[in-house]
Amino acid sequence: MTSFTQTVRVVGAGLLGTSIGLALTKQGVDVAIASQSAKSVELAVQYGAYKIAKESDSPDLIVVCVPPNLTAKIISQELEQFPDAIVTDVASVKASVLNELIALGAPIDRYVGSHPMAGRERGGVIAGRADLFVGRPWVITSNEKSKPEGVALIKQLATALEASVIESTAVDHDRAVALVSHVPQLISSLLASRLVGANASDVSLAGQGLRDTTRIAASDPALWMQILQANSREVQAVLTSYQAELAGVVSALSNVADAANYETIEAVLKAGNVGIEKIPGKHGTKHSTYAQVVVMIDDKPGELARLLTEVGDIGINLEELKLEHSPSAQIGLVELYVLPTAEQSLIADLQARGWRIA
Amino acid sequence: MTSFTQTVRVVGAGLLGTSIGLALTKQGVDVAIASQSAKSVELAVQYGAYKIAKESDSPDLIVVCVPPNLTAKIISQELEQFPDAIVTDVASVKASVLNELIALGAPIDRYVGSHPMAGRERGGVIAGRADLFVGRPWVITSNEKSKPEGVALIKQLATALEASVIESTAVDHDRAVALVSHVPQLISSLLASRLVGANASDVSLAGQGLRDTTRIAASDPALWMQILQANSREVQAVLTSYQAELAGVVSALSNVADAANYETIEAVLKAGNVGIEKIPGKHGTKHSTYAQVVVMIDDKPGELARLLTEVGDIGINLEELKLEHSPSAQIGLVELYVLPTAEQSLIADLQARGWRIA
Repeated sequence: MTSFTQTVRVVGAGLLGTSIGLALTKQGVDVAIASQSAKSVELAVQYGAYKIAKESDSPDLIVVCVPPNLTAKIISQELEQFPDAIVTDVASVKASVLNELIALGAPIDRYVGSHPMAGRERGGVIAGRADLFVGRPWVITSNEKSKPEGVALIKQLATALEASVIESTAVDHDRAVALVSHVPQLISSLLASRLVGANASDVSLAGQGLRDTTRIAASDPALWMQILQANSREVQAVLTSYQAELAGVVSALSNVADAANYETIEAVLKAGNVGIEKIPGKHGTKHSTYAQVVVMIDDKPGELARLLTEVGDIGINLEELKLEHSPSAQIGLVELYVLPTAEQSLIADLQARGWRIA
Repeated sequence: MTSFTQTVRVVGAGLLGTSIGLALTKQGVDVAIASQSAKSVELAVQYGAYKIAKESDSPDLIVVCVPPNLTAKIISQELEQFPDAIVTDVASVKASVLNELIALGAPIDRYVGSHPMAGRERGGVIAGRADLFVGRPWVITSNEKSKPEGVALIKQLATALEASVIESTAVDHDRAVALVSHVPQLISSLLASRLVGANASDVSLAGQGLRDTTRIAASDPALWMQILQANSREVQAVLTSYQAELAGVVSALSNVADAANYETIEAVLKAGNVGIEKIPGKHGTKHSTYAQVVVMIDDKPGELARLLTEVGDIGINLEELKLEHSPSAQIGLVELYVLPTAEQSLIADLQARGWRIA
C-alpha cells in the first residue's frame, strides 16, 4: 500500500465522502470535512472520519462528494477558493461534469475526474466504511489539460484506498457505465414495475431470481434521475439495442414451435450465457476460463483444510473454490477451479494422494 | 416437521430429484432412484441420496423430475407401470403437462401436479441439497379429478421437505410464474446479451448491480426453451406490457429536460420502488438460513488453507464457502457461511487471531 502524505479536504459527508475520510484518517492523513449539513459533519467527525474544515486550511487535494447535479458547480467553487489544490470528484457521470466546468471557464488543469465504483444500498455517514474501495475499480478520467502531477495524485489516492485504478476518458467512462450500471437500473425498475398491479398471490411465488433481478429497483429515484439525465444519450443507445432484441422475442413468443422463432429466443438465452462470462472478478462466473475439478471429501472437520494444504503442496494455484454442503450428505463436494493447463496434473496428484475425484 | 412414511420412487437424478432424495433419505424414507443416466444414478447413490430402483419396488409415491418436455410422457408411463401409486412432478409449467396427460388419456385421478419453487442456476446431482426446499413455496396444482388422498400425500411430501404449501390451479400457477420467473429470465438474458459485443474495458467496470441483474442469465438455454415454449402465452402477455413501458422510457431519454419526459422516466423508477415492496420477505433463501462472514486474505498460496485450519481449530462448522478471485485485487475475499448462532463468536475468534473481517 502506498502511503499517502498530502492533506485532503472532502466536500460532502455522504457514503463516499465518509468512507474516503475514514480510510485516510486511519492511515494518519490529515482530512478536513466540509458539508452544507452541519449535522452530517458532526456525525462524520464523531465517527472518526475527519476534522472540521477551517478557512485557514490549505489542502493539497480536494475530493468533491456531492450529488451529480451539484458536482460541477462545487468543483468550480473549490478550484477558485483553493488556487493551489488539485480537485477531483466521485460523480458517476463524467462527461457532463467536465463540459459544465469548461462552460464555466474553470481552470480544469487542476481538475481530474474520478469515479470509484463502490456503492452500497444504504447511504449517508453511517453507511461509510474504510474498506469500501478495497479491490473495487476506481476510474480516473483526466482531461486534456489535467496536470500530470494531478493525475498522479489521484492515482496515489485510489491506491492508498486499495482500489484498482482504471484510466479512461470521460466519454469512454460514460459509455461503459451506461452499459454496466445505468441500463441495468432501468431494466430492473421496469421489471419491478410489473409487480405493482399484480395479484399478491402471484407475487408470493417470487424466488431468488426475481429478488436478484429487482434488487436495485429499490434505488433512490431522485439520485437516479440526475444520473440518467446526465448520461441520457449513452443510456438510450444501449436501451435501443435492448428494445430491438426484446421486440424480436415478444414476436417470436407468438409461435415458438416455428423454427425461426425458436432460434430467435434461444439465441437470446445463449447470448446471455456468453455475456455473463465477460463479467470479471467477484461473483463473475469465469468458469469457462478455468477447469473444474470436483473432489469428494468426508464431511468431517479439517478435511477441507487438509485438501487445500495438499493442493498447496502440489504447487497448483487455485483460481476459485466452492464448497456446498448439503446438511445430510455423507460427503462434501469441493469444486476447485484451476487453469486448464493444470487440470490433469492436479487430478493425477490428488488421486495419488488418495483423494476421490467426482 | 411431519414424518413421511411412504415409499418413494424418484424418476430423474438432476438437481430437484437429488435434493428430494437427500432430504427424504435423511428422514429414513425408503427412496429409490430411476434415471436414464447410469452415471448420475451412481453419483446420486454415492452422494447418499437413494438406493437404485428395482423392478420389484412398489412405491406409494412417484416424483417425476425430468425435463419439462418429457414430463407428461414419463408421468403417463409411471401411472401405467405402477397402478396403485400417486404420481406428481416438479415441472415449472403446469397447464401444458396436464393438457398433454388428458390428451394421452392418462388416469389423472392419480396425478397431482406440483412445482417446488427452488431452482438454482446450477443443475445436476452435485448441486443437490437436502435443504433446497426449506421455506420455499411448493405449489400444488391438483386437477378436477385428483383423488383427495393424492393431494394430501403431496402436501405431506412438501411439508416433510419443510416447504410452504401453496394450492393453486395449473392456469393460475402458469400466469404467476410467467411474472415472477419466466419474464425475469428473459429480461436478464437480454441484458447480459448486451455484454457480448461490448469492450472488455467497459465490462470491467461492472459492479454488484449488473452482477445481480444478470445472475440468472447463466441458466441452461435448453431447459429454458422448454419452459418458455410451454408457457409462451403468459410470458408474452407480461413482456408486452414491459415492452410498452420500455418504449416510453427510450423515447423520453431523447430529451429528459422536458417535464413530461422527466416524469415518464421518474414514474418507472418510483413504480420500481413500489413493486419491489410487494415481494414477500426473503424466507428460506440460502443466505438468510446462514450468516455470511467475509474474511480478507492476502492473495498468496497457503492463506486459505491456514484460514480454514484455524476455523476448524475454533470448532465452528462451515455450511458453505466461496472464494472468488478478483484478478487485480491484492487481497481475496472469502465468504464463510455458518449457522447464525455461530456468527458472532466466529468473527470475534478470527479477529483475535489477526484475520481481517470485511
